[in-house]
Amino acid sequence: MKLATLKTGTRDGELVVVSRDLTKAVKAEGIAPTLQAALDDWETMAPALQVLSDRVNDGTAEEIFDFDPARAEAPLPRAYQWADGSAYVNHVELVRRARGAVLPESFWTDPLMYQGGSDSFLGPYEDIQAGDEAWGIDFEGEVAIITDDVPMGVAAEDAGKHIKLLMLVNDVSLRGLIPAELGKGFGFFHAKPSSAFSPVAVTPDELGGAWDGGKVSLPLLSHLNGDLFGKPNAGEDMTFTFPKLIAHAAKTRPLGAGCIVGSGTVSNKQDTDHGSAIADGGVGYSCIAEVRMIETINSGEAKTPFMRFGDRIKIEMKDDAGASIFGAIDQQVVKYDGP
Amino acid sequence: MKLATLKTGTRDGELVVVSRDLTKAVKAEGIAPTLQAALDDWETMAPALQVLSDRVNDGTAEEIFDFDPARAEAPLPRAYQWADGSAYVNHVELVRRARGAVLPESFWTDPLMYQGGSDSFLGPYEDIQAGDEAWGIDFEGEVAIITDDVPMGVAAEDAGKHIKLLMLVNDVSLRGLIPAELGKGFGFFHAKPSSAFSPVAVTPDELGGAWDGGKVSLPLLSHLNGDLFGKPNAGEDMTFTFPKLIAHAAKTRPLGAGCIVGSGTVSNKQDTDHGSAIADGGVGYSCIAEVRMIETINSGEAKTPFMRFGDRIKIEMKDDAGASIFGAIDQQVVKYDGP
Repeated sequence: MKLATLKTGTRDGELVVVSRDLTKAVKAEGIAPTLQAALDDWETMAPALQVLSDRVNDGTAEEIFDFDPARAEAPLPRAYQWADGSAYVNHVELVRRARGAVLPESFWTDPLMYQGGSDSFLGPYEDIQAGDEAWGIDFEGEVAIITDDVPMGVAAEDAGKHIKLLMLVNDVSLRGLIPAELGKGFGFFHAKPSSAFSPVAVTPDELGGAWDGGKVSLPLLSHLNGDLFGKPNAGEDMTFTFPKLIAHAAKTRPLGAGCIVGSGTVSNKQDTDHGSAIADGGVGYSCIAEVRMIETINSGEAKTPFMRFGDRIKIEMKDDAGASIFGAIDQQVVKYDGP
Repeated sequence: MKLATLKTGTRDGELVVVSRDLTKAVKAEGIAPTLQAALDDWETMAPALQVLSDRVNDGTAEEIFDFDPARAEAPLPRAYQWADGSAYVNHVELVRRARGAVLPESFWTDPLMYQGGSDSFLGPYEDIQAGDEAWGIDFEGEVAIITDDVPMGVAAEDAGKHIKLLMLVNDVSLRGLIPAELGKGFGFFHAKPSSAFSPVAVTPDELGGAWDGGKVSLPLLSHLNGDLFGKPNAGEDMTFTFPKLIAHAAKTRPLGAGCIVGSGTVSNKQDTDHGSAIADGGVGYSCIAEVRMIETINSGEAKTPFMRFGDRIKIEMKDDAGASIFGAIDQQVVKYDGP
C-alpha cells in the first residue's frame, strides 16, 4: 500500500491511503488520524489500512478523491528519529576527496551515519529556504525506510523485519558550511537543514522484485532545472543494506516506531574509479558535490555551480513500466530573508 | 508551574501538573493529554495549566493525588528535536585534552552543538542499559530548555521568549566509543545513547531570581553512589546563554514546538585553570571524564573509573531554601544482554 499525509493546517496533517498509480486517495480517519499514530500500533493498523488500500485500487472505497501531491506533507511531517547512513561509499569517497580528506579503509566495513534533525521536515513540493547562495546549496537524493520499534542491539539478520515503509528523501546539504562545521568535531548541524520527502511512503511489497529485503534495485532519477542529472541504480554499490544500517543505528539504544533511516546519497561506480556524469555518458550523480569532484579530477576545476535561488530539483523513482513509485520530490530554492 | 508526564503504558504518557513542593499532582486531561500536545498550542494551554497549577498549590484542585517521581517518564518521553550545546567551555577544554585534542580559539565565540537522538528518552529513575563496561559509561549533568516554535534565523536577542520550560538532563555518554566515532567525522551516534530527564519541567518563573532569562544561577548537584561528586553553579562560566544556543540551533532551519536545547555539561573554572574536584576542596564536576582529566593533570593518571554495572548517579538542583526544583534524576547502570 501507499500512504501520504495531506496538509490540513495541523502539525501532523491527515493520513490518506493512495492508489498504486498515485491518482486517487481516501482518508484513513477511521483507522488512524496520522502516519505516526499508524506506526505507533502498526500490527493493528497495517491490516486495516491494507483493506482500504485494496478498495482504493479497485475503486470500491467510499469518498475517493483525486490525489494531489502538491497538497502533501512529508509522510511524517515531523519524526522522533532521522538517522542518515552513507551506504554508497563512492559518494563518501568523492565528497571527502573534494574536502581534501582521505577515506579510511574502515569505511568499507563500518557504516558512517549522522544523527539528523527531524522537527521540521519539508513536503515534496515545499521550497528550500536558504539565507545565502554562499552556503553552497546542494541536494542529495536518497532512499529511506521507516521502522517500527527496534530493540537495542538488534542483529542485522533480525533488523529487516522492522522495515515497514520506504520513501525518497532530499537530504538538503549546505556544502559551504560543512568544512568549518565538521572541523569542530561534533558533526553536522547547520549544514543539514530540513530534509524533504516524497509524496508517498510505500510498503515493501509495492516494490515487487525491485526489493530484496535490503535494497531497492531501481534507478534514482534526479533532474536539475529540468535536465537529467543522475540515474544511478540504488541497488548497486550499496555497501551497507538497510538492515545493516538499522543494526548500526540501534547498537547502543532502541529505535522508536517511526524511526527514519536514510541510505545516504545514491552513487554508482559504473566499473570506473568514481563513476561518471550524464554529460560524459554515465549514470550521473544524486548530488552536485560529486559531479564537481569528477569535473575537478577530469579537468582541474569544478564547473557545475551549487544551486542558486530559483533553481529546481526533482527526485523520483520509476518502476520497470515507467510508473512513478513514490511520486516526485520537486523543490525550488528560494531566498530566506529572516523572521 | 511544574509539569510532569506519568507512565500509563502509552508512548507519550499522561500530562500532570505538580505542586511546587513536588508532593502533589493533578491530571491535566481536561486541558492537554500530553506535554507535546500542550507545547503544540502553548499560547492557549499555558494559561489553563497555570490555573490548575495554582489550584494544586493551594489545595483546591479536585482529585489531587500524591506525586511519585518513580512513576514519571521524561517530561517529553520522545521529542522531535534534541539539540545539545556545550556552553560550559571548561568542560569542552577538559574532555578534549583527555583525547589529546586542543581547543580552537573559536570555541569561545562559536557554540559547539550536537544533534541528539530523541526517540527513546529515559525517565528520571530508569536504568542506564549498556552492553559492556568497556564502553566507558559516564553521566553528564546539564540544564535544558524546551521551546515553542522558533523561526529560522532568529536573533539571540529575540530567542529568549521562546523558552517555555526548563528541566535537568543526564546526557549519558559512552567515553570508550567517542574517539573512534568522532574520528569518522560525522559526530556522535553510538556514544550518545538515550538521555534521561528530571521528573518535572518548570516554567521560568518557578526559578525566581535564579533565572535571568539566559541561565540558571544555582548549583547542579551530582551524587555518584551516594557521594557528592559535583556542585558547580550553572550560572557561572556559561559562555553561551540559552538564547544564544537557540539562535545557533535555528541558523539554517526552524525549530518545532517541543524542541529541547541542552546547556552541555555544567562546569566551573573556580578561578583556576580547569576547576577542581570535591576531594580537593573544589565544586567538583558534572561528569567523570572531567575529574579523570584533572587527576591526570595533577598526578599523571586517572584514578576515578567510569561507571560500572550497579553504580548509581543522582542529579538534582535545589533552591536557596534547599527545596528540589525539578526533582532528582536517579539512575542505576545495568548490563544489557541483548534483545
